Amino acid sequence: MTMTTTTRIIAAPVVPSTGALRPLGVDEVHITDGFWAERQRVNGAATLPHIEHWLEKDGWLGNFDLAASGALPAGRRGREFSDSEVYKYLEAVAWEIGRRGTDAALEARFRAVVDRVAAAQESDGYLNTNFGRPGQGARWSDLEWGHELYCLGHLFQAAVARERTRPGADDGLLAVATRAADLVCSVFGESGIQSVCGHAEVEVGLAELGRLTGEPRYLAQAALFVDRRGHGTLADIEWGRSYFQDHVPVRDADALTGHAVRANYLAAGAADVAVESGDRALLDALRRQWDRTIARRTYVTGGQGSHHQDEAFGDDWELPPDRAYSETCAGIASIMFSWRLLLVEGAGAADARYADLIERTLFNVVATSPSEEGTAFFYANTLHQRRPGEPASPDVMSPRASSSLRAPWFEVSCCPPNVARTFASLAGYLATTDDDGLQLHQYAPASIRTHIAGGRDIAIDIATLYPDDGTITVTVVDDVPEPVTIALRVPAWAASAGLTLRGIDGSVESLEAAPGYVSVRRAFSAGDVLELSLPMAAHFTVPDPRIDAIRDTVAVERGPIVYCLESTDLPAGGDAFSGLQVDRATQPADGESGVAVVLRSASAETSGATDGGWPYSSTDAAAPAAAPITVNLVPYHRWAQRGPSTMRVWLPVHHAR
Amino acid sequence: MTMTTTTRIIAAPVVPSTGALRPLGVDEVHITDGFWAERQRVNGAATLPHIEHWLEKDGWLGNFDLAASGALPAGRRGREFSDSEVYKYLEAVAWEIGRRGTDAALEARFRAVVDRVAAAQESDGYLNTNFGRPGQGARWSDLEWGHELYCLGHLFQAAVARERTRPGADDGLLAVATRAADLVCSVFGESGIQSVCGHAEVEVGLAELGRLTGEPRYLAQAALFVDRRGHGTLADIEWGRSYFQDHVPVRDADALTGHAVRANYLAAGAADVAVESGDRALLDALRRQWDRTIARRTYVTGGQGSHHQDEAFGDDWELPPDRAYSETCAGIASIMFSWRLLLVEGAGAADARYADLIERTLFNVVATSPSEEGTAFFYANTLHQRRPGEPASPDVMSPRASSSLRAPWFEVSCCPPNVARTFASLAGYLATTDDDGLQLHQYAPASIRTHIAGGRDIAIDIATLYPDDGTITVTVVDDVPEPVTIALRVPAWAASAGLTLRGIDGSVESLEAAPGYVSVRRAFSAGDVLELSLPMAAHFTVPDPRIDAIRDTVAVERGPIVYCLESTDLPAGGDAFSGLQVDRATQPADGESGVAVVLRSASAETSGATDGGWPYSSTDAAAPAAAPITVNLVPYHRWAQRGPSTMRVWLPVHHAR
Repeated sequence: MTMTTTTRIIAAPVVPSTGALRPLGVDEVHITDGFWAERQRVNGAATLPHIEHWLEKDGWLGNFDLAASGALPAGRRGREFSDSEVYKYLEAVAWEIGRRGTDAALEARFRAVVDRVAAAQESDGYLNTNFGRPGQGARWSDLEWGHELYCLGHLFQAAVARERTRPGADDGLLAVATRAADLVCSVFGESGIQSVCGHAEVEVGLAELGRLTGEPRYLAQAALFVDRRGHGTLADIEWGRSYFQDHVPVRDADALTGHAVRANYLAAGAADVAVESGDRALLDALRRQWDRTIARRTYVTGGQGSHHQDEAFGDDWELPPDRAYSETCAGIASIMFSWRLLLVEGAGAADARYADLIERTLFNVVATSPSEEGTAFFYANTLHQRRPGEPASPDVMSPRASSSLRAPWFEVSCCPPNVARTFASLAGYLATTDDDGLQLHQYAPASIRTHIAGGRDIAIDIATLYPDDGTITVTVVDDVPEPVTIALRVPAWAASAGLTLRGIDGSVESLEAAPGYVSVRRAFSAGDVLELSLPMAAHFTVPDPRIDAIRDTVAVERGPIVYCLESTDLPAGGDAFSGLQVDRATQPADGESGVAVVLRSASAETSGATDGGWPYSSTDAAAPAAAPITVNLVPYHRWAQRGPSTMRVWLPVHHAR
Repeated sequence: MTMTTTTRIIAAPVVPSTGALRPLGVDEVHITDGFWAERQRVNGAATLPHIEHWLEKDGWLGNFDLAASGALPAGRRGREFSDSEVYKYLEAVAWEIGRRGTDAALEARFRAVVDRVAAAQESDGYLNTNFGRPGQGARWSDLEWGHELYCLGHLFQAAVARERTRPGADDGLLAVATRAADLVCSVFGESGIQSVCGHAEVEVGLAELGRLTGEPRYLAQAALFVDRRGHGTLADIEWGRSYFQDHVPVRDADALTGHAVRANYLAAGAADVAVESGDRALLDALRRQWDRTIARRTYVTGGQGSHHQDEAFGDDWELPPDRAYSETCAGIASIMFSWRLLLVEGAGAADARYADLIERTLFNVVATSPSEEGTAFFYANTLHQRRPGEPASPDVMSPRASSSLRAPWFEVSCCPPNVARTFASLAGYLATTDDDGLQLHQYAPASIRTHIAGGRDIAIDIATLYPDDGTITVTVVDDVPEPVTIALRVPAWAASAGLTLRGIDGSVESLEAAPGYVSVRRAFSAGDVLELSLPMAAHFTVPDPRIDAIRDTVAVERGPIVYCLESTDLPAGGDAFSGLQVDRATQPADGESGVAVVLRSASAETSGATDGGWPYSSTDAAAPAAAPITVNLVPYHRWAQRGPSTMRVWLPVHHAR
C-alpha cells in the first residue's frame, strides 16, 4: 500500500497520521442533492433542535448546571451515561457548523452548551455528573457499568470535531477535553488503575485527540486500554466478560463478540492504535475479526447484534431476523471500524468490501432509524415484525427497544445523537485522496474540491439519481494537467458495471468495471466526464445455508437497497402474513414505488383465525391451490413509515408439493 | 362430561371438588421400575439432600432464623423470592414422605425446617424475610417485583401437599399457611389493595388451600386475583404489562403471553377458580388459550418461552431453537395447566392431547433438566447449542441461564426444587378414576390400588419397558365382578396402535386403538391382561411452514422421545456442525444407543476454518460431493450428559442442487 502522511487538521471524522488513503473534510466534499442531502437537511433543520429539546426537557443538560452549582446529586436525571448524549450532540453540531460553513445562530447554541459543560468540570479535570460527589459513587468505582470513560471518549470526539472544523475556535471545548484526557492518563496510566471501561469508546476518543493535538500520551493511553482489555479485569456477569470484550485480548479474538456497539467501538479504537503505532499484528487481527464478523455475524442490512438481552453478537450463523437487535448505534460503530480499515488499506480490489459494507449499513441501518421528519428513531432494527407496533407518543420517552415504531426519545438515547453526528459528517465518508489521485467510495450528488500531493488541485462534480438509478456522472470541473488517478468503487453486487469516459474533446472510451475499484489515470480537462453505470435490476438474494434462521427464504435487493414486505401492501392485511411464500420462479420486477414479487399461500390456513393443533407432524403440509398475488415491496429503510405494520425482509420460498 | 364429586383429601397435587376425572394419590399409585422410578429414586436419594444443602449453605434457610431473632434485614441473603425455594423444598419432601409411606429421618428433617419457617411468621400471619421490617421495603410495596404473594402461594402448596399426604400431621405447617392466607384475604379482599402479584402463583396456592380446608374465602380470594389481573394495576415496564399478564383480562386473552412460568401458573390458578366456581366461560377461554399456545407457541419438546430477555413467550410462530428459553419451570407450570384441563374435561378422544403434552413435556423438558446424578440442572433448555459450554463447578452458584451445561444451583434457583416436587408427586399424574372406571394417562411400570364409585376396588399392575419399547401390559390383580371401564391413552403419534385382551380364561380379543383413549368396559378377573402396543419406529418430524426459524429442517422422534444430534457423536467433532444436513430419503433407524440418520455436507466449506466472505448471494450454493456419514442421535433429555458439546434438535434437510 502507498503510505501517505496526513496533516493533523482535516475536517473529517477520522484523520490517521498515516495510511493508504487520506480522508477529505466536510469543507472539501459537499453533498448537494438526493437521498443523503435530504437527510442532512432534515438532520440540521429538525433532528438537532429535537435532540437539544429533549436534552433540556429531560434534564440531561441541566445535570451539568447542577454540577456547577454544587447541587448534585440532588436533582440529577437520566441514566449513568446521559452526559455522553450531550457530547454527541455537541459533536453533531460541530460537524453541522463545519458543513454549513457559517451559521451564527447554531454557533451561539453550540457555545452555550459548551459553557454549561465547562462549568461542570472539576479543578483536576474530572468531568462526570454521576460520580465523585458525596452521595454518589466514588470516581472510577464502577468501571463495569459506570460509563465514566465512555462519556469522556465522546467528549474527546466532540472536541476533535470542533477543532477540525473550526481550528482555534476560542470556545474552551478543546481545553476541557485535554484537561480530562490528562486526568485519564494520570489515573489510568502505566502505574495507574489497571483496568478498562466496561463500554469501549475512550480508546477512539483518546486516539483522535492524540492525532489532533500531537500529544503522544493520549495515543499511549489508548494503546494501554486496548492491551489491557481481555484479561478479565472487569467483573464477571451473567452474560460473561465477553459482553464487554474482556474475555480475550483484542489481538487474540477471532470475531467481534459481545455487546455489538462496544465491540465495534473497541475495534475502531484498536485500529487507530494499530495505525498510529505501526502495529501490523494488531491490524491483521482486526482484519481477521472483520472478515469473520462480516461472513458469519452480520445481517443482510449490514446490521449487527442478534440478542436483545445483552444487545450482543450471537454465535457464528446466529442471525434470527425476528430477534435482530441490529442497534442503530452498532451500525454506526461498524461504519467507524470499516472506515478505519479502508483508510489504512487503500482502494485495492479487495478493499471495496469495506466501502460496500459502509454503503449497505448507511442505506439499510442508519437511514432506517430516523423518520422522514427526523424526530423519531428506531433504536433496534428488526428484520421481521410479527405484530404491528403501537404508535409512540411524540412527548413520551420510550424504553430502548420495545417499540416497533420509531420513538422520539429513549431512556437510553444513544441512537438519535449518533445518527445526527453521522449525518452531519457524512460528506467525510464519500471520497479520499492519496498521493496519486482521488477515490470515490460512496455515490451521491456532490461537489468535491481538494488537492493531492504536489499541490495538484482536483475539482469534480457528481450527478446521479443513485440509488434509484445506477448512473453516476462525474464531471471534472477544472483542468488537471498532470496525470492523476480517479478511482470509483464498483460494489460487489454490480457484476456487469461499465465506465464510460466522455472527453470534452468528444472522445468516448468504455472500460469494463469489475467489482472493486475501477480507475482511470490520465490528465483531465475541465468538462471531461466519467460515467459509471451500475446494474440496478432487482434480484432475489439467497443466504448461506449455515444461517439457520432464514433457511429456505430469499430477500430482495436492488442496488444497495434491501427491500421488505409490509402488511400495509398486502390485500388481506396482516393476518395472512405468516402463511405467505414467494414464487421464486418469477423474478422481482421494478415498479413505480418499489419492487413487485408474486406470493403464494404456504398452508391451508392462512387466516390466523383457526388453529390446526400440534404444529409438528410426520408428513409435509400440502400446499393449497390459492391464486397467487402480486405485491409491492418497499425499501427496508422506509418500513413503518406509513403507520403500524407487520414486516419481513426474508420471504419463505414456495415449493409445489 | 361426567361430573364426579371428590373428597377433599387425596394425596395428589390437584384435587378439584368436581370435574370429569378424580385424581389418584401417591399412596394409590406407585411407580415401581423403569425411567421414572429411577428418577424418583435419584430425586429422593440425591436431589432433596442437595437442595437442602444449598438452601442452608446460601443462607436462604438462615433468613428465617434471622427473621425469628429480629436480626433482619442484616445478614439476609438471596434474591427477593428465596423464601419460595424453601417452600418448594418442603412441598417436595412432603410428597416424598407420602410416596415412601414412612421415613422417620426425612420426617424429622421436614419438621425441623417447618419449625424454622413457623418461627419467622409474624403475629398477624405475615411471613416474608424480605419485606416489612425497618430497613426493608414496606409490606406489599413492590407488587411488580417483590414476589411476596408468590412466595405465599408456594407456602400454601407445601401445606396442602403435607396435609394431603399426612392428614392431621401435627407439625404446624397448615396453621402457618392458613394464618398467612387469612391475612392475604384481609389485605387483598374486596375492599383491600386492588392489585395482584407480579408473579402469579398465589392463585393456585389459595385455590388448593381452599379445596383442602373448605374455607370459601380462599377460593374467593383466588377468583378476585384472577379477575383483577389484566387491568393494568401493575406498573408498565420495558417489556410491557404482558410480562406479568396484566395487559388483558384472563378471560379475554387468546393465547398465553409474557413470562412463560407466570402465564402457566396463572392459567392453572384460573382453571382452579373456573372449576370450583362453575365458570364455564372462563374455562372455555383457558382452553382456547391452551389450544393456540400449543398450536403456535410451543417447542417440539413441549418447552415454552422463546425469549431469554424476559423469559417469555414469543409471538405466534416465533420458536427459535437456538434461543429457546424453554425454562424447566415453564414446562412444569405447563403440566400443571394441562393436568387441570384434563381433570375437568375427561378422557374423551380430544382430551388425550392434554396427557400427550404432559408426556412430551415430562420426557423432553422436565427429565432433561437434572443430571443423571440429580445434583445439577438445566434452567433453560435450548434446542440448539452452537458452542460447547464450560463445565459448571459443583460448588459455585450459576446465573440462571448462562451455562449450557447443567449447574448445581442458581442465583434464581426455582428449577431444582420445582423438578424435585414434580418427581416426588409424579405418581399422581399417571392415572385417574371416574364413577365408571380407571383411566391410564402415562405409562410406567406401576401398581395401582384404588376404588371407584360404589366402593368397587380396582387393583392393577403395569409392566412395560416404555419408552424404549411400546408394549404396555396391564394385569388385573383382583377380580372386579361388576363391569368397569379401563381406558388407556393412545398418543397422537401412535397411528397404528392396538389393544389385546388376554383373559385368564384363555380368551384373546384384539381392538383397534386410535389416538385418543381406547377403553374396555367389562367385569375383570384377577389375571386378566390388557396389552397396549404402541408403534415405536423412529421417524422424521416436519414443522408447520409458518414456524420461521426451523423452515426446511426435520426433527427425529421415537415414541414420546425427541432426539438430538450432539457433536460428541460426530466423527469430525463440533467444527463441521453447521455445515451438515440430513438425508431425508433415508429413514432414521433404531440403533443400540439411539437412532441413526445419514448426514451430508451443506456447503463447500464445513471446516469452519475459513470464511467465504459475504454470506448472501444471488445464486444458490452448490452442494459439494462429500461422502455421506451415518451418525447416532441421542435422546434430547440426555444431551450434554457426556461433557460439553454442540447440539441440535432440528436438522437442516439436504437438497441436491
